Amino acid sequence: MAKARIQPRLLKGFRDCLPATALARERMIRSLQDVFASFGFTPIDTPALEYADILLGKGSEETDKQLFRFEDNGGRDVAMRFDLTVPLARFAAMYGNEIGSPFKRYHVAPVWRAEKPQRGRYREFIQCDFDILGPASAQSDAEIVAVINAALINLGVKHKIKLNNRQLLNGLLQSFGVANNAAAVLRAIDKLDKQGEAAVMQELIDSAGLSSEQSSQILNFLALGSADPADTLAAISKAVRGVDAGEQGAAQLRAVLDFVKSYGVAQDCIEIDLRIARGLDYYTGTVFETICTELPDIGSICSGGRYDNLVAVYSNRELPGVGASIGLDRLMAALEELGSLSLSSTPADVLVTVASESSASESCKLAASLRSAGLNVYLYPEAKKLGAQLKFANRIDVPFVIVATDEQLSSKRCSLKNMRSGEQQDDLSYEEAAQQLGSRR
Amino acid sequence: MAKARIQPRLLKGFRDCLPATALARERMIRSLQDVFASFGFTPIDTPALEYADILLGKGSEETDKQLFRFEDNGGRDVAMRFDLTVPLARFAAMYGNEIGSPFKRYHVAPVWRAEKPQRGRYREFIQCDFDILGPASAQSDAEIVAVINAALINLGVKHKIKLNNRQLLNGLLQSFGVANNAAAVLRAIDKLDKQGEAAVMQELIDSAGLSSEQSSQILNFLALGSADPADTLAAISKAVRGVDAGEQGAAQLRAVLDFVKSYGVAQDCIEIDLRIARGLDYYTGTVFETICTELPDIGSICSGGRYDNLVAVYSNRELPGVGASIGLDRLMAALEELGSLSLSSTPADVLVTVASESSASESCKLAASLRSAGLNVYLYPEAKKLGAQLKFANRIDVPFVIVATDEQLSSKRCSLKNMRSGEQQDDLSYEEAAQQLGSRR
Repeated sequence: MAKARIQPRLLKGFRDCLPATALARERMIRSLQDVFASFGFTPIDTPALEYADILLGKGSEETDKQLFRFEDNGGRDVAMRFDLTVPLARFAAMYGNEIGSPFKRYHVAPVWRAEKPQRGRYREFIQCDFDILGPASAQSDAEIVAVINAALINLGVKHKIKLNNRQLLNGLLQSFGVANNAAAVLRAIDKLDKQGEAAVMQELIDSAGLSSEQSSQILNFLALGSADPADTLAAISKAVRGVDAGEQGAAQLRAVLDFVKSYGVAQDCIEIDLRIARGLDYYTGTVFETICTELPDIGSICSGGRYDNLVAVYSNRELPGVGASIGLDRLMAALEELGSLSLSSTPADVLVTVASESSASESCKLAASLRSAGLNVYLYPEAKKLGAQLKFANRIDVPFVIVATDEQLSSKRCSLKNMRSGEQQDDLSYEEAAQQLGSRR
Repeated sequence: MAKARIQPRLLKGFRDCLPATALARERMIRSLQDVFASFGFTPIDTPALEYADILLGKGSEETDKQLFRFEDNGGRDVAMRFDLTVPLARFAAMYGNEIGSPFKRYHVAPVWRAEKPQRGRYREFIQCDFDILGPASAQSDAEIVAVINAALINLGVKHKIKLNNRQLLNGLLQSFGVANNAAAVLRAIDKLDKQGEAAVMQELIDSAGLSSEQSSQILNFLALGSADPADTLAAISKAVRGVDAGEQGAAQLRAVLDFVKSYGVAQDCIEIDLRIARGLDYYTGTVFETICTELPDIGSICSGGRYDNLVAVYSNRELPGVGASIGLDRLMAALEELGSLSLSSTPADVLVTVASESSASESCKLAASLRSAGLNVYLYPEAKKLGAQLKFANRIDVPFVIVATDEQLSSKRCSLKNMRSGEQQDDLSYEEAAQQLGSRR
């Protein structure tokens, strides 16, 4: 009979979610779904597996290396999705006529990347994306900012959303006559935080072909900013005057900021930051990142921007879009670090003990009566010593426990124990117990 | 500039969820989560990818063929999970000390099977599993039945849960001296519905080594059943009298039925059906299937049972369990066929039109004001002709639309149009509009 036992283990870079984490995550996702719905966004879903060429559509060599890619039983070259933006572009190309325009959608789902595992980074993680396809309007850009703001307020996260527009830097580069080197310039700028101005200036000269004067001009431009966005906007406008792309970028940024205000976003949650570049090629206008103001070092918890050509990879239809992605795991880590993540490992309001086999069926009735009053009730699943059941209640950290002897149950009475204070109320009817619990939730 | 366009397409057997389906599914999942929580179950999550030997733990050749299995970049033999029970067993073996006992968990997540695609069957689908690990009590079995019942009531599905106990048939086979042939007998019995009694009787004789008299006895036993479960239980007890396993099975079935009643499950939602076998080897006691009484032909929408040895594949600890799995996609198909699935493609209560660029920012304020009253508000994302916006509102089937001219908006007034009745209320303040919408939801 002795069968070889299989060693239970996980793949490197993957993890399990235990109850406390899974419960907190489920609550966060539901909170996000509520906010998305309040702005009229609808969910969609796409398969975890797709043809590899679809997923690699606009990808880089980097993406290719990160794919979980294989040949399926039918000999197809398939891969697990590594983000939710590429599947959205494929989706929009396929169902353009059914979904119509505008199309506001969200998608909360796992993605997989075969990255080198690091602390806090996993090969499987959940993305929460929300996008507006169709209109290339400043209002759409502002609505995405408003959704980020509402989502973070709903989760209790103090935040600042940093805005920029890709056209501003493009304009500046055009005026230097080096517009084609934009990618190299973006790569250099991305290193400002880590390597400092001197190193970036050298890279702008060496790799992006800028003169030392031009490099200084760019670094000075990126440093524009003041407490009042109106002043920053004025300085930006002055810097890009006479260059088409730059003037367009400044006008867009101004329009987006005006709309953001109309959407009711508090002004101190918004900031212009010209150094926000976003690595990805596909952004064409507004870009944004979001920091948690109490923990700025964890990096952006919600980033995105406007991409006006992405769907064209799969379709002959132009379909501008703007969207953002919330880093759920990073956000959870932040909330946990701030001590503002509820890490209860049970959704139960109360645990009902089972005193004996003979009264177990009455305990079931008691639990059912509390449940019908709208309470979450953990009924202990067998008769056991009371001490063991109370110890278990402590372990799962349930706030209240109902205890009742066989005799109490036979006259439909019970006692309610507050596990935090130790206080106990005796001789309650089931209805009275439910009322007490209802008023304490 | 002309880049080769990639043909957007899906893998065979996979599908996208468009808004109406995704919204209905999200609502169903949230309804299920609420019910699971009301019984004190906690969520967990496990990775989509695992070592193949873990997933194949107690699997058959059939499972092996259905796996999406491949070698990852690190040369590991990995596969995508094909169910949520095997990962639960692995999880329980790894975290026994952390999770403690009893452990009530649910898990709602996609699984993948490389099955031959058929109408209504896909290679990726969502499972909703809920289990109680720890106590081998009749009360636990009954609680799982009570959760199924509550979940289906919450979803508005009329149902009947059919119960059996594996030990009853085992007892009968023991008394025939053919207990070792149980698997062959189960396989034959599984075909009763499709092939009829005569064919099954022949198979029992040919493949399971039973005499023709024994085969008749088994078929007569399986047909036991009457409107009153008490009568059925009495007949069963008589049939298995004197055989240990059979008497145990009868006592367990009786105890489970008693508890089910105490949990408040309506008697007409419960039935003993001795023909419920459940193909899987790992069930050891109570087994159940659930039919949708208005659509019995779609088969079981929620099945499961007690498995007392599963965790032992990965651990030296015995950990009995009982659980069930709701077939979400089958259930959705059923609800759709019954016309009781809401297939709205928007969560919005109202669409706010945008009359002109100059008043767009006031429309944002109007929308924000309705949102702060708790309404789901779809603000049209750009200024456009009113006709186009109303056409769009019809298309997404939103029940109400707010229209307002620049002049109305300048004095913070608007009109509310009921899209179903065509009725329109004019000259409302934003608060009055919110009140009207709130009272109509």
